[in-house]
Amino acid sequence: MGKEKLAIIGSGNWGSAIARIAGNNVPRFSEEFDQKISVWVYEEEFEGKKLTEIINTEHENKKYLPGVKLPENVVAIPDIGEAVKGATALVFVMPHQFLGRVIDQLSGKVQKGAKAISLIKGVDVKGADIHIFADVISDKLGVSCSALSGANIAPEVARDQFSETTIGYRSKAEGEMWKRLFETPSFRVSLVEDVAGVSLCGALKNIVAVAAGLVEGLGWGNNSQAAIMRIGLLEMHEFCIEFFEGVKAETFLMESSGVADVITSCLGGRNKRVAVAFVKEKKSFDELEQSMLNGQKLQGIHTAKEVHNFLEARNRVDAYPLFNNVYKVCWEDHPVEKLTEGI
Amino acid sequence: MGKEKLAIIGSGNWGSAIARIAGNNVPRFSEEFDQKISVWVYEEEFEGKKLTEIINTEHENKKYLPGVKLPENVVAIPDIGEAVKGATALVFVMPHQFLGRVIDQLSGKVQKGAKAISLIKGVDVKGADIHIFADVISDKLGVSCSALSGANIAPEVARDQFSETTIGYRSKAEGEMWKRLFETPSFRVSLVEDVAGVSLCGALKNIVAVAAGLVEGLGWGNNSQAAIMRIGLLEMHEFCIEFFEGVKAETFLMESSGVADVITSCLGGRNKRVAVAFVKEKKSFDELEQSMLNGQKLQGIHTAKEVHNFLEARNRVDAYPLFNNVYKVCWEDHPVEKLTEGI
Repeated sequence: MGKEKLAIIGSGNWGSAIARIAGNNVPRFSEEFDQKISVWVYEEEFEGKKLTEIINTEHENKKYLPGVKLPENVVAIPDIGEAVKGATALVFVMPHQFLGRVIDQLSGKVQKGAKAISLIKGVDVKGADIHIFADVISDKLGVSCSALSGANIAPEVARDQFSETTIGYRSKAEGEMWKRLFETPSFRVSLVEDVAGVSLCGALKNIVAVAAGLVEGLGWGNNSQAAIMRIGLLEMHEFCIEFFEGVKAETFLMESSGVADVITSCLGGRNKRVAVAFVKEKKSFDELEQSMLNGQKLQGIHTAKEVHNFLEARNRVDAYPLFNNVYKVCWEDHPVEKLTEGI
Repeated sequence: MGKEKLAIIGSGNWGSAIARIAGNNVPRFSEEFDQKISVWVYEEEFEGKKLTEIINTEHENKKYLPGVKLPENVVAIPDIGEAVKGATALVFVMPHQFLGRVIDQLSGKVQKGAKAISLIKGVDVKGADIHIFADVISDKLGVSCSALSGANIAPEVARDQFSETTIGYRSKAEGEMWKRLFETPSFRVSLVEDVAGVSLCGALKNIVAVAAGLVEGLGWGNNSQAAIMRIGLLEMHEFCIEFFEGVKAETFLMESSGVADVITSCLGGRNKRVAVAFVKEKKSFDELEQSMLNGQKLQGIHTAKEVHNFLEARNRVDAYPLFNNVYKVCWEDHPVEKLTEGI
């Protein structure tokens, strides 16, 4: 058997942080892994230079992860076909709205039998259908796709501050391979046989983070924050048990992907921050997305809407009162003071 | 059958907040409860007046819960025997170090068949023996003692900010009675048949809060905070499963007493705050107890020591690496940077 060859599809701050870890890890497993790690970089100019050039000469993603050195075996490639050529292990790490186009571009270019792992947050909702992106990748590209999610703020992981993550694997052997690539003394990886649970945690926690921001905006205290996190975690858990087979309670209640990521997202991050501003500044989310996020979408409120539409199509809105209240506050002018009504 | 008569033993901020709730609730259940609620107040002077007098004339505990009005059916009594006379429902709410003396004073004065509930934080450790205070109260006074604990910062509960709590009951009927006394629209009570689990959560979470403070003192970020909370919660859970019969996983992983109280205590509170100062100011805990707590003990570090001594007596120290590392950092000059070693 040849060596596993890694390609990372995406080079934002999280893609760069993960590339750094994998690049540092492969020398420890030189029998198993090809030492060169390809990173597909969406080419753009930064300070008058091409981003791939900056990464390949200065070994730093100055645009998305400034101040963090990347190992020299991490190679930026602007052509996606070239980046995945010969790759047997594909890491998908990008905002979910770009995945469709990336899959189209990869069509016919992925090596047969390749393994994949999705670090993408979000879910794919169409009416009464809901899918995780690991399944979308598996189906469209014919690869076996695991998922990784956890309390992982990229700049903290990139600076080796202690943190943990969870991999939901398709097969134990694949899970263990991904773990060898990604685990470090300060980035602990645990394995669960639950691709759906891990993926869903990463999507649904953003709704809870919005709720935590609304609570803070109201001036409520730490008790209320903790109550909202607890209730949100349980609704996430119930939602996944109801609509996905094989989801495990531990993924939510005991793993980094669940309880710890809910906590991290409710302590900080953009979903929390923008929701605080929504209450305090009494501006619309449209305005706040423009002024605070440079026009980018706030994931939590859009996931709240998608999940609400899905639950409505399934006639199950009332079973998830916190999700429903977040939706109503964000999209239907429901008074924010009523966030805990019916919970 | 006569009506239930409530006596609250203790009148700090938490005792006063709970007295306020019970005083407001009993009119809704006038067939079941005597409308007068006795509160035993350790008599002291405040601004030149007796504290009981202030409470009974101004209906406010100006020393421990200033700014919050108490209902007029809450009556402060300086004599503990008189306070519990005829009481069929006793609420114990005080720092644990005072419980021994209180039990001595109550000996022979508690009505036969009375029910009790403990809101006391901490555990009673003697060498290789460990007991929860609800059991101590049950054994010493011959009453059936439940426990209440949750993410409950007293001033927030007293101001009706949304929060939740958990009652571990001895019998379902007793649990439901306590719930009628304490639940309000903004203070949600859930019931579990797990007195030990609820009690232990309230004690052990303080060790985790110290760990969270050490992490913040080190300048680590939200990922690390969340990881420490998650690991702490799991060690709490394992500890209780190992040493107490009948403890339920939900109490830790799903209830306010568990996950939510760990979060609240790690977000703020004295254990967190003093541990941050320990790292940043490089002073001893002795000095910090003097300067930051007016000479009061910091519960988390003392619980860490008691639990460590207990685990040593049982030869099980290594099974709880976070508890052990907190102990070593606080009591044995272990470098704080090694907090996550061996975890």
